[in-house]
Amino acid sequence: MAGRRPGVRERVLAAAVELFAGQGYDATSVQQVVERAQVTKGALYHYFSSKDDLLYEIYHHLISLQLAELDAIVARQMPTADAVGAVIASLVSTTAAHAQEAAVFGREMHRLDKERREAIRADRRRYHETFRAVIDRGQARGELASVASAETVTLMVFGMVNQIPVWYRPDGPKDADQLTHEVTDFVLAALRPA
Amino acid sequence: MAGRRPGVRERVLAAAVELFAGQGYDATSVQQVVERAQVTKGALYHYFSSKDDLLYEIYHHLISLQLAELDAIVARQMPTADAVGAVIASLVSTTAAHAQEAAVFGREMHRLDKERREAIRADRRRYHETFRAVIDRGQARGELASVASAETVTLMVFGMVNQIPVWYRPDGPKDADQLTHEVTDFVLAALRPA
Repeated sequence: MAGRRPGVRERVLAAAVELFAGQGYDATSVQQVVERAQVTKGALYHYFSSKDDLLYEIYHHLISLQLAELDAIVARQMPTADAVGAVIASLVSTTAAHAQEAAVFGREMHRLDKERREAIRADRRRYHETFRAVIDRGQARGELASVASAETVTLMVFGMVNQIPVWYRPDGPKDADQLTHEVTDFVLAALRPA
Repeated sequence: MAGRRPGVRERVLAAAVELFAGQGYDATSVQQVVERAQVTKGALYHYFSSKDDLLYEIYHHLISLQLAELDAIVARQMPTADAVGAVIASLVSTTAAHAQEAAVFGREMHRLDKERREAIRADRRRYHETFRAVIDRGQARGELASVASAETVTLMVFGMVNQIPVWYRPDGPKDADQLTHEVTDFVLAALRPA
């Protein structure tokens, strides 16, 4: 049965990302997604209930991956500086690897229905609060300086990451590893205890 | 003549921002803008050639203001640390004061025609390059440490600023002045010469 063949779900999502990126969410029909992915409409509806659902899953896939990596980093109970570096590396590499998905989602997320929008917000909030808690604890322990609140540090790191879809090109001059190092060095230099 | 009455241009732009923010650019007609602004269609077309033009002017107004403030700061030839603080204060206050315009534009800018999109990109690039040059010069003079490239510092500052429309509420708990101080302190702590 075509709908259960491995890779169908991924092909449908990839086709949806490309179409949403190229012509916008509104202008894209489920029929176009089906044609581009070369699947039947039944196969698509086996995995996704609606166009809304496609948009949701495009981003849900990325934030779920990022949350899993974040939880794994926190579970390792590293020194704060190492944890900050690991979180930044995870955010930069996952965002660079899914830059088109992140760009499409950032642009179209307001079109999601309330329930799906709330689900995504809850995931993002959990990410934000978990990272902020890492900074907070480092500051409380004196491993990090309190030059700025943990909230502002978090906003700066996420702000930088959220820019990546705007300028990042896989074949461009900026390298994800290099960026990770620079951002980590910058953040830790700012937070170095006196 | 209604079209030349002071305030018509501003009323049309304010109505367009509210409608684009509330229901999206695609779903908004020029007729709806006219009704909300309580002006005639002729008055609107006296100032704006199209719906595209409204979207362009919403953001062009903001980036022009920011560029004028940036140029004024650079012209004062302050020590680099003071210039960095002044640029951050200008970016935070102008973005917070025009958060809805910035949010609408960020979401809908891909709908602009090529020429207008390029014009906005050129303005943003000029802002980016001017600020980066301030950091670059400070690093070259030894006023700032080279812990991260001027490009990465610029990306972090703009990333934080570009987040403001996502969370900022005029009546919310976060204060623009407080944020300005924290971000400035954070950036300058990271760039403090050894």
